[in-house]
Amino acid sequence: MTEYNGIVLGPNQYGKAEVRVVKVTRDTDRHEIEDLNVTSQLRGDFTVAHTEGDNSPVVPTDTQKNTVYAFAKDGVGSPEAFLLRLHKHFTSEFEWVTGGRWEAEQYTWSRINDHDHAFVRTNTATRTAVVVADDGGAPRVISGLKELTVLKTTASGFVGYPKDKYTTLPETTDRILATDVSARWRYNTTDVDFNAVYASVEAILLEKFAEKYSYALQTTLFEMGAAVIAAHPEIDEIRFSMPNKHHFVVDLSPFGLENPNEVFYAADRPYGKIEAAVQREGADLDDSAWAGIAGFC
Amino acid sequence: MTEYNGIVLGPNQYGKAEVRVVKVTRDTDRHEIEDLNVTSQLRGDFTVAHTEGDNSPVVPTDTQKNTVYAFAKDGVGSPEAFLLRLHKHFTSEFEWVTGGRWEAEQYTWSRINDHDHAFVRTNTATRTAVVVADDGGAPRVISGLKELTVLKTTASGFVGYPKDKYTTLPETTDRILATDVSARWRYNTTDVDFNAVYASVEAILLEKFAEKYSYALQTTLFEMGAAVIAAHPEIDEIRFSMPNKHHFVVDLSPFGLENPNEVFYAADRPYGKIEAAVQREGADLDDSAWAGIAGFC
Amino acid sequence: MTEYNGIVLGPNQYGKAEVRVVKVTRDTDRHEIEDLNVTSQLRGDFTVAHTEGDNSPVVPTDTQKNTVYAFAKDGVGSPEAFLLRLHKHFTSEFEWVTGGRWEAEQYTWSRINDHDHAFVRTNTATRTAVVVADDGGAPRVISGLKELTVLKTTASGFVGYPKDKYTTLPETTDRILATDVSARWRYNTTDVDFNAVYASVEAILLEKFAEKYSYALQTTLFEMGAAVIAAHPEIDEIRFSMPNKHHFVVDLSPFGLENPNEVFYAADRPYGKIEAAVQREGADLDDSAWAGIAGFC
Amino acid sequence: MTEYNGIVLGPNQYGKAEVRVVKVTRDTDRHEIEDLNVTSQLRGDFTVAHTEGDNSPVVPTDTQKNTVYAFAKDGVGSPEAFLLRLHKHFTSEFEWVTGGRWEAEQYTWSRINDHDHAFVRTNTATRTAVVVADDGGAPRVISGLKELTVLKTTASGFVGYPKDKYTTLPETTDRILATDVSARWRYNTTDVDFNAVYASVEAILLEKFAEKYSYALQTTLFEMGAAVIAAHPEIDEIRFSMPNKHHFVVDLSPFGLENPNEVFYAADRPYGKIEAAVQREGADLDDSAWAGIAGFC
Repeated sequence: MTEYNGIVLGPNQYGKAEVRVVKVTRDTDRHEIEDLNVTSQLRGDFTVAHTEGDNSPVVPTDTQKNTVYAFAKDGVGSPEAFLLRLHKHFTSEFEWVTGGRWEAEQYTWSRINDHDHAFVRTNTATRTAVVVADDGGAPRVISGLKELTVLKTTASGFVGYPKDKYTTLPETTDRILATDVSARWRYNTTDVDFNAVYASVEAILLEKFAEKYSYALQTTLFEMGAAVIAAHPEIDEIRFSMPNKHHFVVDLSPFGLENPNEVFYAADRPYGKIEAAVQREGADLDDSAWAGIAGFC
Repeated sequence: MTEYNGIVLGPNQYGKAEVRVVKVTRDTDRHEIEDLNVTSQLRGDFTVAHTEGDNSPVVPTDTQKNTVYAFAKDGVGSPEAFLLRLHKHFTSEFEWVTGGRWEAEQYTWSRINDHDHAFVRTNTATRTAVVVADDGGAPRVISGLKELTVLKTTASGFVGYPKDKYTTLPETTDRILATDVSARWRYNTTDVDFNAVYASVEAILLEKFAEKYSYALQTTLFEMGAAVIAAHPEIDEIRFSMPNKHHFVVDLSPFGLENPNEVFYAADRPYGKIEAAVQREGADLDDSAWAGIAGFC
Repeated sequence: MTEYNGIVLGPNQYGKAEVRVVKVTRDTDRHEIEDLNVTSQLRGDFTVAHTEGDNSPVVPTDTQKNTVYAFAKDGVGSPEAFLLRLHKHFTSEFEWVTGGRWEAEQYTWSRINDHDHAFVRTNTATRTAVVVADDGGAPRVISGLKELTVLKTTASGFVGYPKDKYTTLPETTDRILATDVSARWRYNTTDVDFNAVYASVEAILLEKFAEKYSYALQTTLFEMGAAVIAAHPEIDEIRFSMPNKHHFVVDLSPFGLENPNEVFYAADRPYGKIEAAVQREGADLDDSAWAGIAGFC
Repeated sequence: MTEYNGIVLGPNQYGKAEVRVVKVTRDTDRHEIEDLNVTSQLRGDFTVAHTEGDNSPVVPTDTQKNTVYAFAKDGVGSPEAFLLRLHKHFTSEFEWVTGGRWEAEQYTWSRINDHDHAFVRTNTATRTAVVVADDGGAPRVISGLKELTVLKTTASGFVGYPKDKYTTLPETTDRILATDVSARWRYNTTDVDFNAVYASVEAILLEKFAEKYSYALQTTLFEMGAAVIAAHPEIDEIRFSMPNKHHFVVDLSPFGLENPNEVFYAADRPYGKIEAAVQREGADLDDSAWAGIAGFC
């Protein structure tokens, strides 16, 4: 290999991304389906692979993929539990693998007319899960959802903001508020019924989005997050990255028509982008687990 | 303009594509929302615009967009009814506009906890509608849906096919069958309760996908289509373009595991592509209305 | 199977879509690469597969995929020539296969610093090809390109159009004109150097887009198409589907700034959509070959 | 507002995302074009907006958008210089705005036949830039590129890796190596000719990808990164997130054909995912600037 004096390897991880695994449980005639997209990445000492072309520590990404499929044979249970199994396996099987990052998306299927083995995909949101571990430490779990698209036709406004020479936006006390909720929450324990808590959090987010007048997306975000933290002691922090999907009132006056917030143009770009964390005061907040999560971190 | 001897303008149409219009009906505190993506294209004699740079017949695409928004003020009702209004307007307002093609997608919103004005987007499928008219003739209506993703974990096989030197596929009587249903159906009348028929067709497609053993996606397609034609005398033809989304059984034998159709790899590409029309015998089938619909026509 | 009186199968085709094949020619140290996405669909009498669950005529889509890979061993040459080989094979190998539709995209790779075997992908446009045959007839070839994104910063205007009550667009003699060229041209013969003609057509389209003042995208489209027909006697028709990608002059006057066509907002949706065919007068124009091509047909 | 005891706001930022701005410089007949997608997000004390519905510190995202357009009037120069101007403006104009994150993508246009004002988009890669500042501190600049797709048809292998019970991958000394390069590099100064360095880094990455035998994508990544650090004293760190885009040799033996690495299946998912940083030893490496960059951080 070429010699590069004074140049070193920094943080690194590698693995297999987007392993699409579908597990059918068919012990009885009433089948169950679990549909995931799993990414496995290992952390540890892989320096020689980068600097010397020596692959002796490189557990192949193909092996990581095989392991995902082999483990699915025993069932998935929840994406979090499945990723924790992967963490435990890789860090115990290979001594130089001291951590890693495992991520999953899960997709929702509903029975067609309560059929035993026919399903239709019904994605109100995509469920996400991340397990991160470093330097032989305990795994940390960040669960989440994305693409939960919600909209209020009223009870939203935006007033009282500072004006400068570049401000042209008029104040309003009645507008459409629309967003795609992306939320991630970090557990302070792994002793969790992950599926039950996921369902609860999703329900709280929807309920709080709907409930009150919105002074800004920031306010609504904080109310949504605070309600989750208040209801779930096993969650210390929840982070959001949410677009403000603008719906502009169309000017119909050239056509002799009034438009009292009835006809809107749904814009694509640009859009507002609101990102914030809501935290339990005094909790032990470990920032490093959030690294690499797209959006705010 | 340059002279091009012996070169002529062929079929043409033009307009504004993907006008994103959201209509809120707020006569009472219980708001209603209609969310569409509308494309308007005009047909007629626009030759001079192409060959002489003379825009005197070119109703601007911007005007077409404005018209969509102005018409939305009166409500949408159904995408089909809305497109029929656009057809009537443009062909009567401008004498050289003798037809056109209008298309819409509609997205589904559900109330959050039965809230009056807060909604969550729930797209099991995207609804589609096309209205086509030519040469001053009556408009024809093709309705449809797309991205209706369905899957059977069993009751599907594929046997009895011809083998040649390039055949390696083994026969199977138990496999996953999965597809994204794209269907378009043509009405023989415009005197239709479009929303009610849409709901009925979607329900039939789901029911028939689930119901029987599938000998091939072709068989299932035909059963789905035939049930729609049988139930709906106002529909003479339904066309499908459906991927066969392969789910391959993962070979777990190297790991000492059996895999009796439990763990699958959901593949992206390549995929099967099955396209066919199911028709009412003896009906007047007008092919030209299908031109320009992506996929089979 | 269920009996459906008075319901029949209409037009149909099926096959394997998006077979991603990369062919490396390595007879010498200077490697060549061909990178395609191939779709093969067969037409013929497949009625019993739809109506009776009898797969005896159904050449598996998996076999079609295998055939694509096996044929690639002999080299691709051009996407058109490759698809013509597939047509000849399937219609001669299986007597009930009387036609089909074969489609390909091809991607461009360039050598990195004239290296023998290292390449970088340089997609100015994606090349397309379609071969269609029916009822034992001769194959017809439609070549094309898509995603050729071009823009003029001036020498484009739009004036002289009709105004009605919904018209608010001001006339302009200086605007940005931008589009993604999608063009498809039909050959009147298969005795063509397809790679050479492709390069020539792409060059003509670019040259003509740039050359003259544009009175409307329609005019520019016609000039581009007419120049292709004039230069290539083996092409009888070329069709375009082109968005008018609006670039709006931003109103900077609230900030005390003039904006003489210097700062633009590049909008996503809606966009103009201009579709037209340019034809050789008197040519034998076979419309059916265009069916199923997304966009105008 | 609701009281939430013991729940607090954590890190937050907000702004306008994906402002599509096209700047035409037309001082002479030979026009220049700059095409960017700009995101502006502010950091500072916005607590009351989240917890009390008080928008007094919330500089509207609409104002941020207006500022982008107004500043573009003076020209862009380089994405980095443009973002630095935005940083300086917002942190000096509003005293409670103590930092922020500004991001841009830039797209490449080439002249058509050296034309004065007609261009074709030629994206070999998309250029990226991020400027981050916190708590009144100096801005840090991270430049990058993405979607630089490269491939070697040989001179790549993978051997010597550890085997366990889940390993089935055979060793190889001749395979295709393909990836989409995503790289981000951090400057240790803002006194940089950003356009010149960008061009140099892109050239180095291509050259080093091509140059040597690849023992693994990790090795090639390190060589690419080390060469950049060695050549550019103003860069202290470069990070990569690169898929290993698998090209599998198709088994043609069932058809009686050999396939000595000539015919490949280009797979979509899963793919390898290789992420690592290459750093100048002893440099002051500030991790926080990397937060929120999708992929490895």
